[in-house]
Amino acid sequence: MDDINDVKIVACENSKYIKPLRLQYTQNGKKKIWDAMKVHDSVVVVVYNSSRDVLVLVRQFRPAIYINSVEISRLEDGSQYVDIGKYPGHLGLTYEFCAGIIDKDKPILDIAREELLEECGYAVPPECIRRITGFRTGVGTAGARQEMFYAEVTDEMKVAAGGGIADEGEMIDVVEIPAADALKFAYDETINKPVGVLYGLTWFMTSVYQKPV
Amino acid sequence: MDDINDVKIVACENSKYIKPLRLQYTQNGKKKIWDAMKVHDSVVVVVYNSSRDVLVLVRQFRPAIYINSVEISRLEDGSQYVDIGKYPGHLGLTYEFCAGIIDKDKPILDIAREELLEECGYAVPPECIRRITGFRTGVGTAGARQEMFYAEVTDEMKVAAGGGIADEGEMIDVVEIPAADALKFAYDETINKPVGVLYGLTWFMTSVYQKPV
Repeated sequence: MDDINDVKIVACENSKYIKPLRLQYTQNGKKKIWDAMKVHDSVVVVVYNSSRDVLVLVRQFRPAIYINSVEISRLEDGSQYVDIGKYPGHLGLTYEFCAGIIDKDKPILDIAREELLEECGYAVPPECIRRITGFRTGVGTAGARQEMFYAEVTDEMKVAAGGGIADEGEMIDVVEIPAADALKFAYDETINKPVGVLYGLTWFMTSVYQKPV
Repeated sequence: MDDINDVKIVACENSKYIKPLRLQYTQNGKKKIWDAMKVHDSVVVVVYNSSRDVLVLVRQFRPAIYINSVEISRLEDGSQYVDIGKYPGHLGLTYEFCAGIIDKDKPILDIAREELLEECGYAVPPECIRRITGFRTGVGTAGARQEMFYAEVTDEMKVAAGGGIADEGEMIDVVEIPAADALKFAYDETINKPVGVLYGLTWFMTSVYQKPV
């Protein structure tokens, strides 16, 4: 998982994944310019396994986290790389809730259930998953919506290993956190996690698990 | 504030603000490529005014939210625009906590205090502000850290109007939410807000305000 090697930084022209648009507009009569990206909306699922009283998350290596946690070195020929001895791959590991982009024309709940199966290996009937709320995941350069769900699962629903789609290059570990340790985990800053995890864990503890924060 | 007009989308080459890097690396022996961005870390501050029992947030037009909330139209000559009659500017308004990037070599707490003065008009002594925790604001293309603070302010600390730095083009409204309405506000999905606001409000209600969620 975090056996990362040969990290090089090369020119990124015409990225298929990061496509900025330039907005020209007037605000209260004043001309402005802002560079932003159109991005896919997404789903994210807080997963609680009641059979074993654990929260189910996914762990993966995130290049965007890694590159924002290291220094980039430069060789005499101008090429850029990261010194893996100094900055090992685990710096890019994150703990996240099961999630996926909304890129299919089907009910969002079904997309959430597909991600639960692909990433975590749970076949979750519709009555065991419900929507919590929706929000934005960013405001500066990308402002996609994210829909957050809550799924209560049991060991009986675990039908596959999970781990993502290997053919698409996904390498995902399914990890379990004892529910009683959720807030200790949330505030352990040695563990990379997006703020949505802090929100989801706090929501779970106060709205479902009923434990005082 | 949301008097937005003449929205055009133009080619965005060599953006000063969105600069993707291409990472080449091997993970568990498998060669991979990922496009990501180096981005500034930032501070964000949950602000509670105890004189009037309100939370203090900022409201602004965010082009990245707007462009992800509208359809882009195309003229015969290929130029792209947004139909303001159909998609008025208020679609891009967000409610956020006071925040700013860490781009100066000074203590992070001082950067948070500067933002409180610039955006909200409060001169906050160091003993009235404390760190809550840190997390990542994204994982896909940008993985910056954000440090979240909590400031308890009073009307006596309000020394300026706030609103950001006009010379830098900032147009920011300071808005107050009655603390008792914080969760109603958090779950009002007609209001655009990043997930960090949901986390911060939930944290405030459960850790400071002591109101059951």
